[in-house]
Amino acid sequence: MPTLVLIRHGQSSWNLENRFTGWWDVNLTELGIEEARAAGALMAEKGLDFDLCFTSLQTRAIKTLNIALETMGRLWLPIEKDWRLNERHYGGLTGLNKAETAALHGDDQVKIWRRSFDIPPPVQDKGSEYDLSADRRYAGIDIPNTESLKDTIARVLPYWESRIAPELKAGKRIVISAHGNSLRALVKHLSHISDDDIASLEIPTGQPIVYELDDALTALDRYYLSER
Amino acid sequence: MPTLVLIRHGQSSWNLENRFTGWWDVNLTELGIEEARAAGALMAEKGLDFDLCFTSLQTRAIKTLNIALETMGRLWLPIEKDWRLNERHYGGLTGLNKAETAALHGDDQVKIWRRSFDIPPPVQDKGSEYDLSADRRYAGIDIPNTESLKDTIARVLPYWESRIAPELKAGKRIVISAHGNSLRALVKHLSHISDDDIASLEIPTGQPIVYELDDALTALDRYYLSER
Repeated sequence: MPTLVLIRHGQSSWNLENRFTGWWDVNLTELGIEEARAAGALMAEKGLDFDLCFTSLQTRAIKTLNIALETMGRLWLPIEKDWRLNERHYGGLTGLNKAETAALHGDDQVKIWRRSFDIPPPVQDKGSEYDLSADRRYAGIDIPNTESLKDTIARVLPYWESRIAPELKAGKRIVISAHGNSLRALVKHLSHISDDDIASLEIPTGQPIVYELDDALTALDRYYLSER
Repeated sequence: MPTLVLIRHGQSSWNLENRFTGWWDVNLTELGIEEARAAGALMAEKGLDFDLCFTSLQTRAIKTLNIALETMGRLWLPIEKDWRLNERHYGGLTGLNKAETAALHGDDQVKIWRRSFDIPPPVQDKGSEYDLSADRRYAGIDIPNTESLKDTIARVLPYWESRIAPELKAGKRIVISAHGNSLRALVKHLSHISDDDIASLEIPTGQPIVYELDDALTALDRYYLSER
């Protein structure tokens, strides 16, 4: 039976400051590091093991993976990093405090930006403080200037189909360390969650989510490892 | 001009305890972590940058690379890990304290095991405390039970030729985080050092060594980054 585990990165400095982060490359907090370590310890304790790892190009997800793997004695596993597992791009909201943004635009508008399926936030201005077009990690990539959850799903799923699903079908045990919205994309796909329901599905930081899949990668069960 | 940087991992717990380590997977000490951080800070300060990274399957080299890359803001770079960059296998000496071994076998014998080119230490017993045959990271690999420096070179160079040299020739800037003897193999090859001289060439921990290479990968210069 194929093994798939999803982990959302541990707490980041902007999770803590309650700011819209998206593609901005913030680091883990001390709590985030501790969450990553605890995730690794839990996976080791429960006897989980892997052959191949996937993560985004963002420090908080890579570091969560590295810390968890080190805790498991598995730092030597191969890791594939890809921008298509990045967090949803928050456009012009990037860097803003969520409470201040709500005070400015109203709770309802912010809720639409955060929780609608297909309405993206305002675009990010060229030359904004958080503009990543000069970041060479994204060289050759058509960097979005904003994304709805639907847009995020539209770049996560082709990566899943082309890179991850074939490895699972070949019998590889896989862990993916990624972000709230790139993981929503995978959970929506695997668990057949509706457009209306997916945006409100909370994915907690640092909690390994286990999928039991059949050979066709149909989900038989999904659970938090901490609850088994 | 191709860029190549070699880094020997920072101090490990068995460097500190003066024990023969080889393939045994010990971790970095606090000093080793600090050396890795300093190597990353120095490379960033000197304006070095990379496209691709190589390391062994051993925690101390992988962690040195991860820490240096994080310090450079480059944790997102691709990393290829391969056993052929592992430290020389120290056979039956693995785990022994170097001073105790000298007291037991004599300084001259230990010097031969440590510094001869083609005389391997005694083989490791099957079922020894440090036998790695059950370690699944080496599944499918014909794990040596001892290696001379010549043996180490004989598995490092084919990897250099097949995986690293082509990437350099394709214009990739490369950093290799590895071990005293796997790096000796590369330095011997690139700098045409004789069999007699290579074993006594000391490669200090955590010091980035820069190679200036021409397009045919002939070494024009080799220096410690800290000295420029």
